[in-house]
Parts: sequence; structure tokens; C-alpha cells
Amino acid sequence: MDVGQLADDLIRMALLEDIGRGDLTSEAVIPAGARAQARFLAKSEMRVAGIPVVARVLAQVDTALHCTWEVQDGEDVARGTVLGTVTGPARSLLMAERTALNFFTRLSGVASGTRRAVAELAGTRCRLLDTRKTTPGWRLLEKYAVRLGGALNHRFGLDDMVLIKDNHIAVAGSITAAVERVRSCLSPAHKIEVEVESLAQLEEALAAGADWILLDNMDLAGIRAAVELTAGRVPLEASGNMTLERLRPVAETGIDYVSMGALTHSVRSADISLDVEL
Amino acid sequence: MDVGQLADDLIRMALLEDIGRGDLTSEAVIPAGARAQARFLAKSEMRVAGIPVVARVLAQVDTALHCTWEVQDGEDVARGTVLGTVTGPARSLLMAERTALNFFTRLSGVASGTRRAVAELAGTRCRLLDTRKTTPGWRLLEKYAVRLGGALNHRFGLDDMVLIKDNHIAVAGSITAAVERVRSCLSPAHKIEVEVESLAQLEEALAAGADWILLDNMDLAGIRAAVELTAGRVPLEASGNMTLERLRPVAETGIDYVSMGALTHSVRSADISLDVEL
Amino acid sequence: MDVGQLADDLIRMALLEDIGRGDLTSEAVIPAGARAQARFLAKSEMRVAGIPVVARVLAQVDTALHCTWEVQDGEDVARGTVLGTVTGPARSLLMAERTALNFFTRLSGVASGTRRAVAELAGTRCRLLDTRKTTPGWRLLEKYAVRLGGALNHRFGLDDMVLIKDNHIAVAGSITAAVERVRSCLSPAHKIEVEVESLAQLEEALAAGADWILLDNMDLAGIRAAVELTAGRVPLEASGNMTLERLRPVAETGIDYVSMGALTHSVRSADISLDVEL
Amino acid sequence: MDVGQLADDLIRMALLEDIGRGDLTSEAVIPAGARAQARFLAKSEMRVAGIPVVARVLAQVDTALHCTWEVQDGEDVARGTVLGTVTGPARSLLMAERTALNFFTRLSGVASGTRRAVAELAGTRCRLLDTRKTTPGWRLLEKYAVRLGGALNHRFGLDDMVLIKDNHIAVAGSITAAVERVRSCLSPAHKIEVEVESLAQLEEALAAGADWILLDNMDLAGIRAAVELTAGRVPLEASGNMTLERLRPVAETGIDYVSMGALTHSVRSADISLDVEL
Amino acid sequence: MDVGQLADDLIRMALLEDIGRGDLTSEAVIPAGARAQARFLAKSEMRVAGIPVVARVLAQVDTALHCTWEVQDGEDVARGTVLGTVTGPARSLLMAERTALNFFTRLSGVASGTRRAVAELAGTRCRLLDTRKTTPGWRLLEKYAVRLGGALNHRFGLDDMVLIKDNHIAVAGSITAAVERVRSCLSPAHKIEVEVESLAQLEEALAAGADWILLDNMDLAGIRAAVELTAGRVPLEASGNMTLERLRPVAETGIDYVSMGALTHSVRSADISLDVEL
Amino acid sequence: MDVGQLADDLIRMALLEDIGRGDLTSEAVIPAGARAQARFLAKSEMRVAGIPVVARVLAQVDTALHCTWEVQDGEDVARGTVLGTVTGPARSLLMAERTALNFFTRLSGVASGTRRAVAELAGTRCRLLDTRKTTPGWRLLEKYAVRLGGALNHRFGLDDMVLIKDNHIAVAGSITAAVERVRSCLSPAHKIEVEVESLAQLEEALAAGADWILLDNMDLAGIRAAVELTAGRVPLEASGNMTLERLRPVAETGIDYVSMGALTHSVRSADISLDVEL
Repeated sequence: MDVGQLADDLIRMALLEDIGRGDLTSEAVIPAGARAQARFLAKSEMRVAGIPVVARVLAQVDTALHCTWEVQDGEDVARGTVLGTVTGPARSLLMAERTALNFFTRLSGVASGTRRAVAELAGTRCRLLDTRKTTPGWRLLEKYAVRLGGALNHRFGLDDMVLIKDNHIAVAGSITAAVERVRSCLSPAHKIEVEVESLAQLEEALAAGADWILLDNMDLAGIRAAVELTAGRVPLEASGNMTLERLRPVAETGIDYVSMGALTHSVRSADISLDVEL
Repeated sequence: MDVGQLADDLIRMALLEDIGRGDLTSEAVIPAGARAQARFLAKSEMRVAGIPVVARVLAQVDTALHCTWEVQDGEDVARGTVLGTVTGPARSLLMAERTALNFFTRLSGVASGTRRAVAELAGTRCRLLDTRKTTPGWRLLEKYAVRLGGALNHRFGLDDMVLIKDNHIAVAGSITAAVERVRSCLSPAHKIEVEVESLAQLEEALAAGADWILLDNMDLAGIRAAVELTAGRVPLEASGNMTLERLRPVAETGIDYVSMGALTHSVRSADISLDVEL
Repeated sequence: MDVGQLADDLIRMALLEDIGRGDLTSEAVIPAGARAQARFLAKSEMRVAGIPVVARVLAQVDTALHCTWEVQDGEDVARGTVLGTVTGPARSLLMAERTALNFFTRLSGVASGTRRAVAELAGTRCRLLDTRKTTPGWRLLEKYAVRLGGALNHRFGLDDMVLIKDNHIAVAGSITAAVERVRSCLSPAHKIEVEVESLAQLEEALAAGADWILLDNMDLAGIRAAVELTAGRVPLEASGNMTLERLRPVAETGIDYVSMGALTHSVRSADISLDVEL
Repeated sequence: MDVGQLADDLIRMALLEDIGRGDLTSEAVIPAGARAQARFLAKSEMRVAGIPVVARVLAQVDTALHCTWEVQDGEDVARGTVLGTVTGPARSLLMAERTALNFFTRLSGVASGTRRAVAELAGTRCRLLDTRKTTPGWRLLEKYAVRLGGALNHRFGLDDMVLIKDNHIAVAGSITAAVERVRSCLSPAHKIEVEVESLAQLEEALAAGADWILLDNMDLAGIRAAVELTAGRVPLEASGNMTLERLRPVAETGIDYVSMGALTHSVRSADISLDVEL
Repeated sequence: MDVGQLADDLIRMALLEDIGRGDLTSEAVIPAGARAQARFLAKSEMRVAGIPVVARVLAQVDTALHCTWEVQDGEDVARGTVLGTVTGPARSLLMAERTALNFFTRLSGVASGTRRAVAELAGTRCRLLDTRKTTPGWRLLEKYAVRLGGALNHRFGLDDMVLIKDNHIAVAGSITAAVERVRSCLSPAHKIEVEVESLAQLEEALAAGADWILLDNMDLAGIRAAVELTAGRVPLEASGNMTLERLRPVAETGIDYVSMGALTHSVRSADISLDVEL
Repeated sequence: MDVGQLADDLIRMALLEDIGRGDLTSEAVIPAGARAQARFLAKSEMRVAGIPVVARVLAQVDTALHCTWEVQDGEDVARGTVLGTVTGPARSLLMAERTALNFFTRLSGVASGTRRAVAELAGTRCRLLDTRKTTPGWRLLEKYAVRLGGALNHRFGLDDMVLIKDNHIAVAGSITAAVERVRSCLSPAHKIEVEVESLAQLEEALAAGADWILLDNMDLAGIRAAVELTAGRVPLEASGNMTLERLRPVAETGIDYVSMGALTHSVRSADISLDVEL
């Protein structure tokens, strides 16, 4: 059950929305027995992501489509690189083309954009994280591409760790009370992160035994002070409208992690074509 | 069956990928009976898109979540506008928050980006079209947002019209032969568009009786010549790596339509928050 | 993704409704390891339709069932013709038998009935169309069988072309207004057909630029007059309670198309048996 | 969970195949807020069947569509009878129209055809049965309509009773051996019917303790002899290419049941229209 | 479509609930190309059940996992027996491990527990039946394991036989009336069992022609009297809070069947491990 | 999206497997319009669990079934307690009865069994955990019932925390290496637990910075030594074939957590009836 299989439902949904009741043009023009060969071609430099997904797209359309890959997910390739070759029934290949490319270009776009962001942090000890601001239906795939881009995944959903935010604190009465409520009904299976907006809150979170602390929308001075105050006792994460330009100054405060929603919510697709020869 | 209902499967998939086995934090901290109110707030100016989808997200999480909207899909709003208000069980509201926003920001992002592109064509007779380069699983939703942005939808899939491309022409032997094959097995229910790369092909497509002709990657001079040659007999569409900058000069050639993949494949999310008050 | 794959969900639903919790009789009587061979036999003359569907039925039950076909979809066969042979595990074959036959006989019934109707039009320039009066769940399959029977498919659904009917005209105020509304919000991707009930409406539809016009329930004289008035400017379609007997006189008016709901809503199954030898 | 709910998956499949990505015409022409009223009208005399299914179709499209019924399933109505009235959003009503009618006309067609066949048996003690020759996906619905037509349902699938046929007998070696195998691994929960082709087989089946015996393709003399031989010890069923014409003579042999595949495999749709007033 | 295939939906649901978004540990620690071998080991004596289900679990995770079995479903094995061996990609094997074992241990637990209960009846003519008190989602699988344990299956659901209980009798007015209502609307396809609480009811049920009679919560004396009164005319079943200890005395009354809900509602899992060698 | 909604797919699967093609008996005997009332009755003392699930079962069968509850999930009730009352259409109530009870009795069985185990730990600081040895398809529901029983949930799946076991250690070469590999590719979002079999491994795990350590199958002396060695630096968990009898002595070693698979893999159903009055 690789990432391609785990995306099987989304892939089927995608194929059906593109193919609908069939490919009118190819069924009219391409003879049933015709075969074709096609090459996935990188039309700009990029970090490749999505090969297992593309493989499942092709397999779902027609198990007679055979694929050989020249590169692997996570590789950086130059413009003009042939990524792989598909051969098989021509109609099936044309049916799969657009859906395969739509997955491939988006995932390689996420990985390539992430790589650019990661490069901003070079030489610092700060690591880049993604967020839950992913395209609905794509959480798993986009987080996979983020990893290929060299960043780490923050939590996958509401169920794999605890993140205590302002609303939770307001209801519980205090950070201390919120952390205690969580402790009383959860085993040690899940990390507890607390979101803080001030140094006072940071101190309270540290005292309450938070495993991890998120500095929400702090400026550079605030982040620097927080790093100093924490002194390595728990990891710190800076978050909030992070841009490529802000990444390096933030990282240079000594913070452990910075998270960035744009890695997945504002993606520029990579440019990949499928050149078919019938 | 509005656009929200037609997206029910994607919405359910999205909720399950975010909620997983439940919201650890809220279940621990928020009392079961607590109620909350929240406001969707536009944090930058935008064209709003996605209200019926957000409504379905909320309804799928909890039919006790009630929503009142201050704006409608397709409206332009200033930064700071309250888009709508949700009230209901606090846990349900927090569970739905991220998924609702992920739909809302992406769709409003598509509509807003489309509006910017449409503005480039102001004063010309050229209309903007989208493509099939949509996010897999999102074809219907993104094409809906494109319409709200003021552009028109090109075909929805391989099954609602005929588009004869280079590969089809190569197999059939000629444009004329390809069009004839299509005619012989299809009723008049579907339009026939032909993709051409030269004026010679354009002339052949016109003679073959194409309903609509796509000029693939032609330069401005080529497009101008094609417009002149066609003289309004059928609609012409210019396509190929269209950018915001190129839109106006292309439109000024007198072409009828221009299509642009970036409307859906490279989207910048709109900035919307959900401010919860427990 | 041939027609069989596109019907996978319906096939699975059909198998589960017939097999339920298992084949009580065969599991009791047939040893687990027993193998069988069986022949699909045409018990009357027919046009064959449904082989890719039957193949998927067998594959879904057991990938160890192997099939060789003596004929192809669309072929006319005499009574007594062996259509194909299946070999494999006996229990699986008996489990698949009824569902495979229920698909095969209905689809061949549609194709054979369509062929009979098409024969009525021999020597005229009129072509036969189907309608949306298909068996719910079977749209794709029945339209496939109609094509095999020699007719053409009218639209597949509400989304692949525009058909302006009396209710739309009433709301819009006039045919002209209705066509204009459609034009203003749709790209040239979709054909616009207008349903008319009189020559006056026909003239208005022609003037409004309809791509295609449907004459609703007109008598022969009316159809003849419409053909004359239109003079080939756009295709004309005659529709409404069409019977085998009416087809030829209608066709001889010179009309381009005639559509007939009975092709799919009132079907006589073809007679096919599966003769099993254990 | 009435018959409409049990058909929910088929109904959704049917709606999606008709509506696809939306109703191009109505969305262009009918204002979003427009309301409509419509009447289901019987255009020939018929026995009505399918109201709970039609109700689910309407509810799945839009819960704001309200329905009042003038008749009940199983009622006989004259031509021109108003069956029910629907009011609600006009676009939703037009979206649901074709799918609702396709269910309604087929099911009423099955019930009406069954009623005609049942009438042939009037005055005899013979009762009419259906078979498993149903439209794939429609087993439950068609058997429901058969009951409304006045016939009884034979088994629903391979899992609710045992039917020992020639192949089972061949493998087991004899009817006696086959019945014994079944007895040894099944509780008394399920009836055992045996299919016989001769009086000798009938005697063996009676001796083996079959609960019910099917006479396969016997002529009238054979059936008469079988009835006499059995002398009421178990119910007898006559089967095999039964036509309307053969029903009465077969029934007059004194046989208990006759089964007829054409009730569900060769159906003439009833004629029902939905007259919409916007 | 063996029992494993019929459980495909449950298996997929089970895999997704265990794997979720992926196996964090193995993806971090086990190299992508690593292979492993593993042995299913019986850690106590048991009757084996579930091999086709385990095979489907492995196939759904990765078709590259190959399995060879040393035993068959229904075999009794001693503690320490190697049941089978799996080889293939190490990550896939670790992903499938827990789900495969959870199915295997529960089903073997049901079969082993059933075998123990069946042993209590040794030497009597009484046979053991299961009930509908199965784990929701597991009806088919648990009834399969019950058969492997040596008992017979009572009805599978509400639809394969008739069981007239106290509520039905109350509504109908009497057992006689209830049986008559059933007879008038059902063909002979389904058995009619009547639940009785007294000898008077038993006599009425016999007179009404019930096929099978259930003695509800009768004591031993009552059961003995019922057996005597019935004198073999129809099968009798004793039911109601049956325990291992009560089985033999009940069986020795001469009753034909005894049914026991605990076979499936209160199961002790068998102890099976999967010993992986990387 | 409470626990009932999250189980909607399992509930639908369960209803369909019990109801199949309909309730033969009730449809024959109970008039369509009949109404009924019924009480859920605890037939032994128990801790109640499953009310939101039972509510969804009833709602899926018929939204006209209304339910009022006298108790809440997590309450302890005496034998004879009325848990709640359902009123509505009689057929619907009888259709839902068995499935509702099968969920209710199993979940209350899990909660009641867990409560008994938790009681063994009274007065110690040790807390009880469940495992991943749950019934396939029931992970979420059984873990919910475990919480109601007073224990805590260990991880939900392979994706919400890291658990490094012997196989991972073998591949990585050492505990230290395995922990490092995990650290290098995961953010701090997920806890890292290490399974150890000796004090030497325990020391290595502590040095490697494990968040949590599982003592696998250690005897009491070993556990005591581990507790002493660890001295509260990280939580310790004892695991391996835990029985009710062993719980207290293990807890008295001073260990923090003990986990027990039997809470979910070997459950005795609670005894609940639904007494229907028509």
C-alpha cells in the first residue's frame, strides 16, 4: 500500500471526471487495436514527485499500459529530461494522459516549491514544516510531495497529535488547565503542542509540560526572545503567513522549526508533457 | 443537486482525511454541550466562491451547524468583509473549520485569479476559457469557480465534445479524414473542434467543416493571420502557455477565445479565516 | 477503460444482488476443486452485444475464469452459434452464470432491436438516434449497444449539450431569448438544440442560430413542411412516440434524424444460454 | 428501509449518469430562485409501481422538492389519471425529471405486464412466479413490481434457497446423492427444490424428500402426468420459455406454479409523463 | 467469489483504519527495497479458520506478497504448528501484519469455540446452529467460521426465511393467522419457522403447517414434552441463553437442533503470531 | 461527526447484511402503517456504551424512528434498567432491532469488561491501555468503548505514533540507530516508543531519547527492575498476554501503564434486549 494505492479512490474519481462516458474523439478516430508509445518530458527543471501515483493512474485505465521510469521520485532533473516511457493500447494512453499529467505536474510542483523554500534555510539548524492547509482530498499526496521536497510533515490531521490553540485555552481557562485536561484523558501516545502568542504564555506552556510550542505570528524580536527563554527545553515552531523572503531571517533567530501553508495551498504546477507517438 | 451536493464524495473524503479518528484536542478540552459562533472573514480583497461547498462541509459534519451568509458566490468583497456566520456545537465547528477553509480559500482563489485574467481582456471581444488542467477530483468545483471569475468553461471532459489533436490527425492521415471519421459515428450532439498549427491546417479544418478551431502555440502574427483567413466563419481559440502578460496582445488580434491552464493548475489561495468565539 | 470497466460498479452491484451470501447449492454439491467448461450459445439469431461486460463479470467473480470468444460485439449471428467458451473453477462459473447472461441477453436485445429499427431506414438519408429513456444505471451500456445496432447516440445526459424545451422557452419568454441566455454563459463547447412544435417556432429557432432543431410530435405533413422550410441549414430531428411502423414514412419526408425511446425503454432480451459441462 | 432506500445506491448512480456535471440548459435559462409545479400523468391505463423509488429520486436531488400522491403502488389507473404532484425549485425538478420517469415507467411496466399474465391464470389454482432473469442492478426493484402485479417471487438469489439443477445432479451422481449432500451441510433454514426433466427423475426427487420440484421444459402431457404422479405431496413448478399464450393451458394441468422470465427480462415501459409548470 | 472476496469491503475498511496515512515507523526505518519472510504460528491448539481472508488482506496491501499455506481452513492444529509462510516486500508485510492477524485470530477463535460446543453434542442426533447475533459487518465471515467449527448456519438474515415471533403472532391474532398471511404472499421458496413458548402454541404451529418450530427458552421438561408431542413431524429447535454446560442435557431430550448466540457474540480469539524475519 | 457518524459505513454494511432484500416475515405479517414502541432493557448489570451508534442505526433504517434515552454512555446500570425507548413504524423497528442490539451489546460488553479490568488497578498509579488487537472494521468503536470503560487508548494505527519493535531494531542495527533514523525524517509531531526485552535495551532506549518505552513480556522482577532503572524519566508500559489476574501484581511494581489486548479481542457481549410492543 504505497502512496499510489492509498490514493486509489481519488485517482478513480479523477479518471471518471475526465473520461466521463468515454473519449469521444479517440474512439472515433483511433482504431481499437492501435498501440502507442509516449514519453513523460520535463519541460523545465524540477524536483520529480508522483511516479507511484502516475503508475496507478495508468494501471487503473488499462493494466496493459507498461511504464519504465528513468528517474525516481525526489530526484532533481534538468529541463528536457525524459522521466519515463509508457507503451500500450493507444486509446488507453490517450484516455489516461490528462489525468496522469494533472497529478504529476501538481505533485512535482509541490516538491519543487518546497525544495526552493528549504534552500532558504541552508546552513541554519531550522527545519521547514508543512501545515493542514492542503487541497481537500490531497492531504496524503501533498504531504508526500512535501517530504520529497526536503521538508518535514507537521501533523496529518486532528487525530495524530494534540494542538492546543487560543479557543481551547479560552474554554479551559488557562494553558495549564487545558494541558491537564488533555493529560487526564489521553495516554502518552500523542504529543501535546501549545500555540502561544506571548512570552508569558510561553512560560506557562513550558511549565505545563508542553512537548512542543508554536509561536503564532510573532515578529523576529519576539521569536528571538522566545528562543532564548526556552533555551532548548522543547522544540519551538514559528508560524503565520510565512513567505519565501521571511524564511531566512526567521530561521536565523535560532528557532527549531518554521511552518508554511503556501507549500500546499498556493502551488505552481511543474511543466511536464506526455509526448505520444502512435 | 447543486455544486455542493455534486461534490459530496470529495467533501466526505476531505473531512475523513482531516478528522481521521476524531479531534483529539477538542474532545479533551471542549465540553460536549458547548456551543460556539464563528465568522468567515475575508483577510484580503477577493471574489468569493465556494459557499454551497462550505455549506455542505458544515452539514456533513453536523446538521446542527447553522449558517447565515452576508455575501453570495461571485461577489467582490473588500478586505475585512464578514462573509458569513456559523453557530452550533463547538466541537463540530472546530472539526469542520480547516476543511471548510481549505475549500473556501482555494475556490475563491480560482475565482479571484480568473477575474484578474478576465480584466486583461476588457474592451476586446475576446473571451477567456479554462482547460482540463484542473486538480484531480476538483474538475467540477474549479470550473464552477472559473465561471464565477467571469470566464467560460471549455469542455468538461473527453466525453462532451470532440477535440481532434495532432495525434488523431496523424492516425487518420489528415484533418479531413479525421473529421469524417468522427462524423460517421457521431450524431450532431457534439461539437467538433480541430487543433491546428499552421494556416494550411487551418484552411483544411475550415474546409472539413470543423465547428471550432484551436490555434496551438501560434505567435501573434500567426494568430492575426488566422483571424483574417477565417473571417468569422467559425470561432477561433488561441492556446498554449498563456500568461497574464500575453492575454491582452493575443486578444487584440481579434481572436474569439483564449484558453489558459494556469487558471486552475497554478492557483494562489485567497486568505479567509474563521474566527471562532466559544 | 473500456465499456466493461466503466460498468464495474454496476457489475459488482449485480453480482452481489444475485450471489448474496454465497451459492448455497453449488457450495454444497460441487467440490471446491472441480473445474468446468461452458459455451455461450445464441438460441435465436441476433446482433451480439456485451462481450466486454461479460468478460468483466467473469473476472470479478474469479480471475481464474478464462474466456475465448468466437465472435465480436456488433456481429450478426445465426441461431445455434457458439459465441464463446469459458473454462475454470466450476463453482465460480456457476456463480457468474446468471449475472453474465442477464447482461449479455439485455445488451444483445438492445442491439438486435436497434438493428431492426435501423433496417426500416434503409435507402433513406435519415439516421436513427436513441434518447435518455434508458434503464437507470445502464445509460452507458445501453447507448453502447445502440451504437452496435447501427444507430447514433443522442446526448448522454444533461451536461453534454443544450436542449431548449418548452419549459425553458416559457421561462425565457421566447426561443430567441433562451438561445441568447445560453450563448452568454456558455463557450462554443456545446451544441444548442431547440425543440419546436410549429413552423413559426422553427423559423424563430433558425433565426436564433440553433445548431440543431427537434420537431416534437409533428405529423408527417408538418415534418415535410419543416424539412422544406429548413432547406438543409441545420439538421432536423423528428421525435415523439416513434414506432417501428412510423419510422419509414417519417424518414421519407427527408428528415435528417429520428429518435426513438423504445430502443432502450422497451427491450426484448435476446436468447442466450450458457451450457455448462462439469 | 423501504424499497426506495434499499435502492439508494442505484438511484444515485442513475442520477449521476443523467446529470453528470450539471444541467447545462436549465442552469443557463432557469433563474436560481424559480419554483415549479409538476404532475405525474398516466398516459395509458396501467398498474402503478415505483412511488417510493420516485420519492427517493426527488429527495436525493433536492430535499426541498415536495410530493403528494393521488394513488398508491399497486393501484390500477385509467389513462389520464394524475398520479401525484411535485412542487419545489424549478432547476431541481427539471434535473430529477428524466431519472424519476425512467424508474417510474419501467417499474409500472413490470407491474402492468405481470398483471396481464396473472389474469391468464384467473380461475385456476396456479400461481405465477418470477425468475432470476432480472435487469442487473434491479433485482430488488423488479421483484417488488412483480409482487405489485399480483405474482409471487421465486428465490431472490443463489443464497436464499437450494435449487438442484442438471449440472449439480451430474456432479453428485444422482438426485438422491445431491439432496443428501445438501442436507448434510445445511440446516433446515432453506428449501430444497429439484429441477427434473422426466417422470423418473420426478419420482427420485420425491423419494429424496425434495421440498419443491421444478418441471423443466415439459410439454402439457408431461406436466399433466407429473401432477398426477405427485398427487399433491409437494408443490410443482412448470418452467421454460413461458409465453402469455401458454400460461392458461399449463395452468389447467393442475400445476401449482408457473414461472416466467419475460416478466422482468422483456418489459414494455408504461407511459407516464411529468408535466412541468414553471 | 470466495469468502475472502465477499469480504473485500470490510478488509479494505480494516486496512485503512490500521494503516491510516501510512506506517510511520517502517517507512522511517525499513529501506524501501528490503524483503522479509514471516511465518504464521499457532501459539495454542486451535481449529484454523480465515485463510482466504488473510490471503485477501495480503493481496490488498501488496500483490507482491506471496503466501504458502501448510494447513487448510477447518483443520485442527497443535500448539506450535506453522500455518503458513509469507514472503515479499518488508514494509508491505509489516503493514499487513496486524490486520491479517486480527482477522485470523477472531475467525479461528469462532471456529475453535464452535468445535468445543459441537463436541458437547457428540453421540446425540442434535445439531448445533448459530444465530444472527453476529458482529456487525462480520455476518458472512462468522457464519463461515461456524461451519468450519462443525455447526450449521441458521438463517443469514431477515430475507432468506420466515421466522414468526411473538410480536408477529400478537399482530396477526394467532399463529394460524400469521402463517396464513405469510402463505398468501410468499411462494414456497422460503421456509416458515414459528417460535413457540408453550405446548399449546406448539400444537397450533404444527396444525398451521409450520416447516420448523423454535422452542423459546423452555426448560428441559418442556423440551422433552415438545419432542414427544411433535413426534418427528417437523424439526424442533431449542433456543435461549444456551451455555456450554446446558448443551448436552438439552441435546439428550431428543431435540433436533439447538442454537447458541455465544458462538459469535462472545468469542475468545485464537492465539496466532506472525514471526517476521527481515 | 460523533462516533456514530464516523461509523456510518460500517452501520450501513451491517444493516444490509442483516436485512438483505427485506424482512420477509414483517412485510408479510405487519401492516404497512402499524406503529410500535420498544424499550432497550439491560438484562444484567453493565456499563452502557454505544448510544450514538444505536441512534445512527435507527436513523439509517428510518428517520421516523424516535428515541429517548434514560441513561448516557459511560453510566453503570443495574439489571433491569430501561436504557431508552424507541417509537415509530413497526416494520422499521423490527428491521433495525437485531443490528441495533448487536452494536449495543458488543460495545457495552467492551466497556463493561474494561471497567472490570480497570477496577483491578484501583489504588495504584498504573493506568490501563488498549492495543491494536481490535475487531477489523471496529477500531474506532472499540477504542471509544474502552475509553468509556475507564482505560486510555494506545495508538490508533500505524500512523499516529512511532513504535520501534524488534524487527525495526534488527534492520537498523541498534535501538540508537533506529531512533536516529526516525528523528531524521519525522518532525516532533509524533511520539517515539521503543519496545525492549531487557534492561540493557532499556538503557539504550533511554539514552537514545525514546519518549516512551514498552517492556515486552517481562516478568514481575524484570518490570520492577525496569521501573527502578528508569526512575520516572519516561513513561513505561508493560505488555504481553495480560490477564485480569496479572493486572494487579504488575501494577504494583510501580509501572505507569499496562496494555491488554483481551479488552477488545476477547469480549463477552453485554445482555440487552429490545422489548417491542406493537
